[in-house]
Amino acid sequence: MLRLNTRDPGFDAAFRKLVSDRRESDENVSRDVQIILDDVRARGDAALAELTRKFDQHELASDADWQVDAATCREAFDNLTPDLRAALELAAKRIRAFHEGQKPADRDETDKHGVRMGARWGAVDAAGLYVPGGRAAYPSSLLMNAIPAKVAGVERLVVVTPSPKGQVNPLVLAAAHLAGVDEVWRIGGAQAVGALAYGTERIKPVDVIVGPGNAWVAEAKRQLYGVVGIDMVAGPSEILLIADGQNSPEWTAADLLSQAEHDPSAQSILITDDPVFADTVADRIGVELAMLPTARVASESWNTHGTIIEVADLMAEAPALANALAAEHVQIATDDPQALFERIRHAGSVFLGRMTPEAVGDYVAGPNHVLPTGRRARFSSGLSVLDFMKRTSFIQLDAKALKAVGPAAVELANAEGLTAHARSIEVRLGI
Amino acid sequence: MLRLNTRDPGFDAAFRKLVSDRRESDENVSRDVQIILDDVRARGDAALAELTRKFDQHELASDADWQVDAATCREAFDNLTPDLRAALELAAKRIRAFHEGQKPADRDETDKHGVRMGARWGAVDAAGLYVPGGRAAYPSSLLMNAIPAKVAGVERLVVVTPSPKGQVNPLVLAAAHLAGVDEVWRIGGAQAVGALAYGTERIKPVDVIVGPGNAWVAEAKRQLYGVVGIDMVAGPSEILLIADGQNSPEWTAADLLSQAEHDPSAQSILITDDPVFADTVADRIGVELAMLPTARVASESWNTHGTIIEVADLMAEAPALANALAAEHVQIATDDPQALFERIRHAGSVFLGRMTPEAVGDYVAGPNHVLPTGRRARFSSGLSVLDFMKRTSFIQLDAKALKAVGPAAVELANAEGLTAHARSIEVRLGI
Repeated sequence: MLRLNTRDPGFDAAFRKLVSDRRESDENVSRDVQIILDDVRARGDAALAELTRKFDQHELASDADWQVDAATCREAFDNLTPDLRAALELAAKRIRAFHEGQKPADRDETDKHGVRMGARWGAVDAAGLYVPGGRAAYPSSLLMNAIPAKVAGVERLVVVTPSPKGQVNPLVLAAAHLAGVDEVWRIGGAQAVGALAYGTERIKPVDVIVGPGNAWVAEAKRQLYGVVGIDMVAGPSEILLIADGQNSPEWTAADLLSQAEHDPSAQSILITDDPVFADTVADRIGVELAMLPTARVASESWNTHGTIIEVADLMAEAPALANALAAEHVQIATDDPQALFERIRHAGSVFLGRMTPEAVGDYVAGPNHVLPTGRRARFSSGLSVLDFMKRTSFIQLDAKALKAVGPAAVELANAEGLTAHARSIEVRLGI
Repeated sequence: MLRLNTRDPGFDAAFRKLVSDRRESDENVSRDVQIILDDVRARGDAALAELTRKFDQHELASDADWQVDAATCREAFDNLTPDLRAALELAAKRIRAFHEGQKPADRDETDKHGVRMGARWGAVDAAGLYVPGGRAAYPSSLLMNAIPAKVAGVERLVVVTPSPKGQVNPLVLAAAHLAGVDEVWRIGGAQAVGALAYGTERIKPVDVIVGPGNAWVAEAKRQLYGVVGIDMVAGPSEILLIADGQNSPEWTAADLLSQAEHDPSAQSILITDDPVFADTVADRIGVELAMLPTARVASESWNTHGTIIEVADLMAEAPALANALAAEHVQIATDDPQALFERIRHAGSVFLGRMTPEAVGDYVAGPNHVLPTGRRARFSSGLSVLDFMKRTSFIQLDAKALKAVGPAAVELANAEGLTAHARSIEVRLGI
């Protein structure tokens, strides 16, 4: 764990290092991924079967080897305990309600010259959702990725998920049923992403691919960006906690560890103006870790990437630090969190007040938990309905409107040397 | 030129080939671009100076070699002819007005349990705009890229443009002045994109990079996607014209050539239900070409990629063909263009009616002319204010709200094996 103080002479350099530390894998999988994508594009299902045998020890022979049918997903849902089923249903309902509010409005306006112009939004035809097979196979992630697609109006929503040695996580299947997923394919890795983008004999291509994955999946999405739309380049999770000394050290330690338990590369940062509180929290982390089944991952993350920054004045100093870090999650535990929030420009999602642990946003609050990591909140946003939609603009002129604005277009087209552009207007104006 | 008829037995195969023909460079510049980006990242200005000497025959020594100052841009603007200045000003005013209407609304809602949730939009701090040095150095493109950034509220808007042998296009400088560009750097190629993304001693990094460029520039943007935000992967321009037999063959030929003159790889497609009209347009293309200074490019494009598709019934057949092509521009020249438009789901921008040549949208209508090409309208949209903004979601709970929804989150966290997530809620609920 790193301990910094903004009043220390070495602070600026140490903070710059913290900001520039991306914590992302440098594993160079680019060439291997390209070979796999080319293979899937050229040989389709045959390549998928070979690669799935090799990487997942799973034979794709019968239809049931390839695809999980709707009845199996429904069965997984019916087999949930009543409490878990109710929790999933509450989460789905709240996520759906919030995302309904993201649906964009069309525009259709006519100006004083009679130039009609506007924009019409529509859903993509088909979307693919990658669901990891291992540690990160979370039903909550399935809901957070699938529900915005369905709210957008996507007619065909396809899940791909590896089934190592034939195993598929029943909680994921239950969530797929609840979210209205249309197809579930038992494939994973770069080959699954390639199949979604290019299509194969069995699998029809999709237009957008979303969802988390390992370095191979992320690189496959990156390479296919432009062939299909993708959600984002995702890195390890992170939280920035801004807390005064009036907080419970136990709560604060629990909050920091809830991020740390995701991944050894995850990062938890605490900014506080109370040095005694900082010490108490640091001590409390050890107590909390002793209680956690996920202690191995959480302690590796906290020991390697955990940071406590002491400042003299939260309102005066924390916003600038937060904006430089542009963290995925920012939790503000003060009496007036709104005042600090007003000064924070770059963050994926903000959790306001002492009773808003980030974890509640991971599951049931409503806003999406798929958020920009690694300082990408400077330029990108969490997953939304818009990721599954696109806008077609339109214009319509009559003779009067063209007479009003056409000559300026002719002037500009000629200045750019685009004579045919100018001429397509001139012939209509008779000039 | 390719001539197809939906009633011919070979139509389906020929149309599939047309749809899958991406017309994009397969030039493999990926490795060279990676070397350049690594060099700029490691050596900054020294690398820029070397690469600019090599590729642009331009020495970066004095400040004036590096940067075009504001006074020079203003001078270029003041030197415009009155007609051209008025045309640029009209274009800028109309583009600004339309894009003002794209600014998204914030959300701030509280549900019956007392869970507050919402989303707040903000501009990125800085955006970079690539402006090509050669054939495609268009002042209209500068306006279309720069104005949405300024409307979004971007405080620092940086143009990079190569100045081969010291030359910079004065029209581009004039447009930069008009659009309120903050810095103009005389660098180009992958090295300029790298400088914008990573920053150098002289050039501060930006958050988003937009604008057209050659294969090297496009590949640099693709490789840096995730380090910065980018607008899109752009390919050659294209138009789909849906026209009945009641149109002027002269106008229609001019419309088809206005797209063809952009680039030998550009594509113009006409769908019509009138075979005689189709023949007349095809003949008229030759007449028009003879008048065009841009005939060399336009005829290469038309001969190689131009296509006329004859259908039996426009309303019944054209929408499905248009949706499969998902063209950048779709022009509908019929008496009731709206009826056809209602059935078109995938298009970058649609131009309605006989008096709406696509060229008017390139310059002065208002909507953006930076649009998805190569069937990407299936999943992406034209450039907009949103490309320069990002959304921060937020939630806020009090004790009552956490008691209402927290237990479901605990249930889900435990099911996912994320004990610390569960605990961060449990400690607050005292359970």
